[in-house]
Amino acid sequence: MGRYEEFTKFRQDMNKKILEQGTFEIKRFFGIDERAYHAGILDAKTKELMGLAASLVLRCDDCVNYHIVQALDKGATNGELFETFTVSLVVGGSIVIPHLRRAVAFLEEMGERIGASSGAGSKG
Amino acid sequence: MGRYEEFTKFRQDMNKKILEQGTFEIKRFFGIDERAYHAGILDAKTKELMGLAASLVLRCDDCVNYHIVQALDKGATNGELFETFTVSLVVGGSIVIPHLRRAVAFLEEMGERIGASSGAGSKG
Amino acid sequence: MGRYEEFTKFRQDMNKKILEQGTFEIKRFFGIDERAYHAGILDAKTKELMGLAASLVLRCDDCVNYHIVQALDKGATNGELFETFTVSLVVGGSIVIPHLRRAVAFLEEMGERIGASSGAGSKG
Amino acid sequence: MGRYEEFTKFRQDMNKKILEQGTFEIKRFFGIDERAYHAGILDAKTKELMGLAASLVLRCDDCVNYHIVQALDKGATNGELFETFTVSLVVGGSIVIPHLRRAVAFLEEMGERIGASSGAGSKG
Amino acid sequence: MGRYEEFTKFRQDMNKKILEQGTFEIKRFFGIDERAYHAGILDAKTKELMGLAASLVLRCDDCVNYHIVQALDKGATNGELFETFTVSLVVGGSIVIPHLRRAVAFLEEMGERIGASSGAGSKG
Amino acid sequence: MGRYEEFTKFRQDMNKKILEQGTFEIKRFFGIDERAYHAGILDAKTKELMGLAASLVLRCDDCVNYHIVQALDKGATNGELFETFTVSLVVGGSIVIPHLRRAVAFLEEMGERIGASSGAGSKG
Repeated sequence: MGRYEEFTKFRQDMNKKILEQGTFEIKRFFGIDERAYHAGILDAKTKELMGLAASLVLRCDDCVNYHIVQALDKGATNGELFETFTVSLVVGGSIVIPHLRRAVAFLEEMGERIGASSGAGSKG
Repeated sequence: MGRYEEFTKFRQDMNKKILEQGTFEIKRFFGIDERAYHAGILDAKTKELMGLAASLVLRCDDCVNYHIVQALDKGATNGELFETFTVSLVVGGSIVIPHLRRAVAFLEEMGERIGASSGAGSKG
Repeated sequence: MGRYEEFTKFRQDMNKKILEQGTFEIKRFFGIDERAYHAGILDAKTKELMGLAASLVLRCDDCVNYHIVQALDKGATNGELFETFTVSLVVGGSIVIPHLRRAVAFLEEMGERIGASSGAGSKG
Repeated sequence: MGRYEEFTKFRQDMNKKILEQGTFEIKRFFGIDERAYHAGILDAKTKELMGLAASLVLRCDDCVNYHIVQALDKGATNGELFETFTVSLVVGGSIVIPHLRRAVAFLEEMGERIGASSGAGSKG
Repeated sequence: MGRYEEFTKFRQDMNKKILEQGTFEIKRFFGIDERAYHAGILDAKTKELMGLAASLVLRCDDCVNYHIVQALDKGATNGELFETFTVSLVVGGSIVIPHLRRAVAFLEEMGERIGASSGAGSKG
Repeated sequence: MGRYEEFTKFRQDMNKKILEQGTFEIKRFFGIDERAYHAGILDAKTKELMGLAASLVLRCDDCVNYHIVQALDKGATNGELFETFTVSLVVGGSIVIPHLRRAVAFLEEMGERIGASSGAGSKG
């Protein structure tokens, strides 16, 4: 199981536990956290890139990875991601750089995964 | 002189002083801070909304006001701004709310200003 | 109109505007933000003091003032508030001090207000 | 040696080195950091839960784990911990979630450990 | 009474109240907060500039002003202050800029005050 | 390959990728991020210690390690580093402690490395 699969499994397992034991407010919060990125007046890709910028300046690696996956899924290109990185770096300064390095490593890993699966003729 | 004019004047006066006395790096930083929001692969409005989201979660009122002005100038609607507020509130939590209140007050002030000036047949 | 009344009025006016124009998610968030402090397994005073500590370390003056009002309303004493300040100061360090100064000034203002109104035989 | 033992050993070893080499101010700080959570007007459990909330909104995993251990030791129940998580999540927003996932994983690990040791008739 | 005098008076009055009502830990913290900037292996000016950089990236205006006063008192020049601003801006990003503007405005106010008083042949 | 070599390799590889794919603004930012620590009116060691203090209060482990390496290279002593830690701890509070523990562990690792290489008669 690769690093991405491990993270995804941990994420799912723990979210499940949180929602099982969680209070009404926690459950509600998880609901609006999902809905906030649905297409509305702004499209879903724009919202994911916005979530990515917010996550980068707040320096939350897991959040960054999550929004990269979602943004790619909504059709974001590398060019769009790097312009999002640019705004985040300028707003947040050099302390964003270690998170940017990890974001670029993760993006590359995602690219290889997508490349591999599209080579196999399917995005699945 | 209104609150907005006062803030703008202070901002311009101080930026001038900073650039006069500032180091090479400070000047360069001010340069890329401006360029980062220029239209590229992503359009300028999207970048301003992204800057607004980053500013809200980092809770910087002056930055929030600045990006609201710029986003309105690039054609952002109230609906788009409120969806940006939504992502920011969900990412950043209730500590964003006091900044959101000031953002909405500022947005209203801007709306009246634009309304007044377009009533006079001119935006310039 | 005093400083506290002004803040309260601004807060109410802006919350009203936010809820009128806000998205579904913003409204839901405001709902759970209120519910999170209701008595549950932990009593309401403990939750307010907890919200106060979180607000102090995140350095949000409006949030600090709000939780001071709520904590006093739930029966918190000055002694309990100062122990909450202690934990917050130790966790958050000297950058908490300016917020602590404003918190103590606000607490004093609230004390005089409560003193005055109870002298008049009524809290309402 | 499990993950918890490893962390505890690293923590103790490094605290020892810090106190050996540290300045007067560092030593004093470590002293008041311990004292701040002693029972006073507020009981020790409440202070630990407060420290937990502050640590969660500041997103410090080691601090979160430490306060979970201390809170459990002072008799905090899962229900009380989840209400503390609720306040923290609402105050700090979705960027708290990755830390909440790790907190719940750690809490579970602690629960199994306590379960195991109480099964053996002793808490040690 | 000018802005600086007002701030200084508020600061002194509130510190007095905090120390009167404060817990043992709060008093101790205030003690080490003062001692941390005393000359040691590093001289006092360097420590004040370090405190200034830390305050700028954490975006605490009162702390910034305090360390500017102290650094000037320990002989820091405008050139040294602007190099400190440079490191802070690069580390902390554009959200530092509003605080930098206020820092430069405050520094100018201090310069005029010092200029005026030395013109009068006295600093006291 | 040790932990330090691994981190350095990852850092270099990712910086290379960022600069290859990065926007004009990202490249410029990396340029001023390097220049900001060059000797000017303040010497390079002082600037690195300042960068270290800023990194500690912002709780960025990679940044802390980087500035420790640079500060040692510019001749900083353990005593100077611990006084920098002191200011950082007092400004940033107990949430800095986990980062301080990792900083001290890293500093020790660096000390052994330097000790080993100077035993071999060379620093290069």
